Amino acid sequence: MRQSQLFTKTRREAPADEVAKNAQLLVRAGYIHKEMAGVYSYLPLGLRTLNRIIQIIREEMDAIGGQELVMSALQDKELWSRTDRWDDAKVDNWFKTSFKSGGETGLGITHEEPLTRIMTDHVSSYRDLPVYAYQFQNKFRNELRAKSGIMRGKEFLMKDLYSFSKDDAQHDAFYAKAREAYLRVFARAGVGDKTYVTFASGGIFSEFSEEFQTISDAGEDTIYVDEEKRLAVNAEVYSGETLSKLGLDKEKLVEKKAIEAGNTFNLGTRFSEPLGLTYTDETGAKKPVIMGCYGIGPTRLMGIIVETLADEKGLVWPMEVAPFKYHLVSLGHEGDEISKLADALYDDLKKKGVDVLYDDRNARAGEKFADSDLLGMPYRIVVGKDSVATGSFEVVNRATGVVEKKSRAEILAM
Amino acid sequence: MRQSQLFTKTRREAPADEVAKNAQLLVRAGYIHKEMAGVYSYLPLGLRTLNRIIQIIREEMDAIGGQELVMSALQDKELWSRTDRWDDAKVDNWFKTSFKSGGETGLGITHEEPLTRIMTDHVSSYRDLPVYAYQFQNKFRNELRAKSGIMRGKEFLMKDLYSFSKDDAQHDAFYAKAREAYLRVFARAGVGDKTYVTFASGGIFSEFSEEFQTISDAGEDTIYVDEEKRLAVNAEVYSGETLSKLGLDKEKLVEKKAIEAGNTFNLGTRFSEPLGLTYTDETGAKKPVIMGCYGIGPTRLMGIIVETLADEKGLVWPMEVAPFKYHLVSLGHEGDEISKLADALYDDLKKKGVDVLYDDRNARAGEKFADSDLLGMPYRIVVGKDSVATGSFEVVNRATGVVEKKSRAEILAM
Repeated sequence: MRQSQLFTKTRREAPADEVAKNAQLLVRAGYIHKEMAGVYSYLPLGLRTLNRIIQIIREEMDAIGGQELVMSALQDKELWSRTDRWDDAKVDNWFKTSFKSGGETGLGITHEEPLTRIMTDHVSSYRDLPVYAYQFQNKFRNELRAKSGIMRGKEFLMKDLYSFSKDDAQHDAFYAKAREAYLRVFARAGVGDKTYVTFASGGIFSEFSEEFQTISDAGEDTIYVDEEKRLAVNAEVYSGETLSKLGLDKEKLVEKKAIEAGNTFNLGTRFSEPLGLTYTDETGAKKPVIMGCYGIGPTRLMGIIVETLADEKGLVWPMEVAPFKYHLVSLGHEGDEISKLADALYDDLKKKGVDVLYDDRNARAGEKFADSDLLGMPYRIVVGKDSVATGSFEVVNRATGVVEKKSRAEILAM
Repeated sequence: MRQSQLFTKTRREAPADEVAKNAQLLVRAGYIHKEMAGVYSYLPLGLRTLNRIIQIIREEMDAIGGQELVMSALQDKELWSRTDRWDDAKVDNWFKTSFKSGGETGLGITHEEPLTRIMTDHVSSYRDLPVYAYQFQNKFRNELRAKSGIMRGKEFLMKDLYSFSKDDAQHDAFYAKAREAYLRVFARAGVGDKTYVTFASGGIFSEFSEEFQTISDAGEDTIYVDEEKRLAVNAEVYSGETLSKLGLDKEKLVEKKAIEAGNTFNLGTRFSEPLGLTYTDETGAKKPVIMGCYGIGPTRLMGIIVETLADEKGLVWPMEVAPFKYHLVSLGHEGDEISKLADALYDDLKKKGVDVLYDDRNARAGEKFADSDLLGMPYRIVVGKDSVATGSFEVVNRATGVVEKKSRAEILAM
């Protein structure tokens, strides 16, 4: 895409009321727009980035048998009353409103209830199980505070997968598979080395849930990390008893601040029993379905990537997440030799199907380089006076700063 | 995809409370789930269909220079007060709720206000114009009645594009381009022959707006069609004066019921003035930006396609919209020769990258054919006893009912 056509502009200063590093940088770079505290819109570069993250997660969920659907935001009060999660005394972060046609409704905070009800239409026999269904959908949570940018919004995108199994063995097999899929997601998103499977409180149906915690000073959680085993324990369950159960040695654990990038939970029959999701087993007996839930927030993950990888000059995107792989920066002016060379390289890259942002603006080199650092594409290709003379281009790795000279052919082979 | 893996099941009867043909068929076929009146979830086949419609619209919006973004659902009361569209006396279909952190908010009914505000950060000179920005995003409208299935929901998906121009000439040029893009969308979605550019009331800034009305008995609008010119007039502006302005002859017009599939509107400076979206022109003078808006509801369009093309046996999807192009129906049972042949053809089609739903279930032929008619893929390929003997397969065109015998090679070349 030609940058002269992109409607967003960068800005030097972040809004004064924005305290989170991720939102400060994303607003400055024109990736997002702050609507209100904890409410953001995603501008073209931000949406492209978000869509790359969504695609990574989608591929990994499909690979373990997930079937994608999308449920409504508006929720049925009667349904949530049956599981006792409607009352504000029980769940305190609903946005509630009412229908002009009569009756209350609320904005989905999560989707166990509606999906369990949907499944009662489609699951009746052990032959229908297991089922894994997931969605990318906006959740609404009426948070009192919103100071973490896109890492904790009042409206945010969630990938929530739910598993439906006939028994614990079927549930456990998938739960282990989901863990591996999650680790692949974080690795592909560029934060794998900083993300740990972390044991946290589990609820009624299992002793622990599993969180995926990414080390970050901006994190709201405290975890204890065993670097060798690549496991951690959340402070909420950190005790001698927990450590001995998990076979972890207190001496080897290091306390760190971290942010929760995902979680997986055994729901047992918490929702299937009150909502009547049962199946007939091999012997003809009626049993409640065993459920699990598996969450990753793509918008939060985008924020985590910024917090973890950005530097003082701006954003730094990993290859699989970047809105464009290359930032082609022309130091020429309309019509000159440098511009013509840059135009030709842009056409070549586009013909090859490479995602490239082309800074074809008439602007000073210093301004273009500062913008390029702020926008954070993995590689910057500079077309300058030198390129016209020698036919070689400066290629700068945004993450490492390493500069190489490459010919047109070498760039097209990258 | 193997149908034995698909979690949704078909059903013989539609829910008793569902009066719209589109929702009755889509629920029976397992494409959607009704959450509440006017609120639907999209199950795997429904989401695939919806995504095809979205992709058609996206391609056509990109082709005329649209830049995609996505805005929030939660809206800023202060912003909407500035354009006098917050008050329930002025706009009567808001869902309103409040923040626990204080203050009211509402769910986006449309997005002129937030996008105009976003543009004040990015547009300042005539050089920044024109800009065309669009999104696919859920709108929420607190409708009193919801009897048209997915054609009129309380929560529904909208593609809304907004144009920002420096003067009327720039606006008019894009407006004409958008009309052509819209006609391409409806043609690709299979309802082009039944959809007419229709003049409707325009507002302050132009005499008429343009609607895209699709002829349907389920329509809520009355229009007067000039078949030769492929133009129509909405009953709301139907008068001798209108006809003479548009150069239409009353004698040639035919009254029809129709449903609005899209609309385009000249907004003039209705939003740019109160929200301060101005630019500096070539002479240094400050002027308000001229805006337009351009809407198509992908969920409504999906409903319109069903209303228009479905028959008494079930859904009928056009090629570009169908969740799968082929429905491969095996009449064999696990392990027999027919099954093996069907498995092989399925593998061949998948290898070729063709979207195919494979009915590999152990079920009676009659049940499979009824399901296949209900699900509505454009072509059904039947693998039966005959196929094993002759190597040829029955290929049934869902829309026309035409049956052909084709060899494996011929099917792979389709």
